[in-house]
Amino acid sequence: MKILLVGASGTLGRAIAQTLSHHEVLAAGRSSAQYPVDITDDASVEALLRKTGKLDAIVSAAGALHFGPLSEMKPADFAIGLNDKLLGQVRLALLGQHHLSDGGSITLTTGIVSAEPIRAGANASAVNRAIEGFVAGAACELPRGLRINAVSPSVLSESMDAYGAFFPGFEPVPAARAALAYRRSVEGVQSGRTFEVW
Amino acid sequence: MKILLVGASGTLGRAIAQTLSHHEVLAAGRSSAQYPVDITDDASVEALLRKTGKLDAIVSAAGALHFGPLSEMKPADFAIGLNDKLLGQVRLALLGQHHLSDGGSITLTTGIVSAEPIRAGANASAVNRAIEGFVAGAACELPRGLRINAVSPSVLSESMDAYGAFFPGFEPVPAARAALAYRRSVEGVQSGRTFEVW
Repeated sequence: MKILLVGASGTLGRAIAQTLSHHEVLAAGRSSAQYPVDITDDASVEALLRKTGKLDAIVSAAGALHFGPLSEMKPADFAIGLNDKLLGQVRLALLGQHHLSDGGSITLTTGIVSAEPIRAGANASAVNRAIEGFVAGAACELPRGLRINAVSPSVLSESMDAYGAFFPGFEPVPAARAALAYRRSVEGVQSGRTFEVW
Repeated sequence: MKILLVGASGTLGRAIAQTLSHHEVLAAGRSSAQYPVDITDDASVEALLRKTGKLDAIVSAAGALHFGPLSEMKPADFAIGLNDKLLGQVRLALLGQHHLSDGGSITLTTGIVSAEPIRAGANASAVNRAIEGFVAGAACELPRGLRINAVSPSVLSESMDAYGAFFPGFEPVPAARAALAYRRSVEGVQSGRTFEVW
């Protein structure tokens, strides 16, 4: 398969690329030399899709959120996650659906905070659940055997130094284990699902 | 209790006002003469909150979504629901939290499409789930006994002429029945919940 992987240089993205390395993986991201993309911008995503040509799968492990105490959170803070991790990934799906071969798939990234809130995580809980809702809704409408799923990892083992304090008592998962769920989405048969990895 | 009701002139809003009529209900909305508000605008919401003074509850039955086929949906279409029903209601909560008396509550509106997708409803599925995620996350952080919940009604009986075609086989609920859940949220003890009315 020819697979576009957005967010390929992140911890999760690198593990996904490794897990899908028996395919042709086009590694895209904000700082990619060959496939640069800003998922918050229609024109940037359209330019990427013109460059890649027809795809068999689109996988996203990209998107920023706002973390901060609710008592200090401003609407503009909350909008960060809406415009980046949520609308950015939805943009990949909405624009990307027209560039997929019959039977192709889209896989987006959500996260455990959708189901298990954490301190300072109200934006993450909202954005991650929205992605899961979009996937559930979009799956019902996709034509030509196209599928769409989400993967919801717990905090990654590799990220515990940076984020561990936000996840007390959460069991981290290695990125390589989370990456398996992306393969399940890409090569499997299900659609509209959120694959939880925790 | 002194209750700010946003979206008071809609079908659901009128039923909520009736159900809460043993309280002092301040009826706000885009076209309200006494309490006009545009929930997509920080300054407008702040002005409303200065005008109302301290509140015991904030109830929102407001917010627009985009309905349209996934195959034609543009990122800008999807952003309609993000900026209006999602960020608009979140704005009421984020700015409103500082104007609530101890033990006060916030009640937002989601809808059955979060759980049960419909044709042309991918934006609604995403936005409604996001609201439920925000409520779940925010409830864990609110101080001073403040509570936050969401109400998720099925399609309203009163709206079947306009929206019934989108909800084949869905059992509609009278607005008066949906309104009970708002009273449960305002006068009850729970927090972080989505009360489903279907």
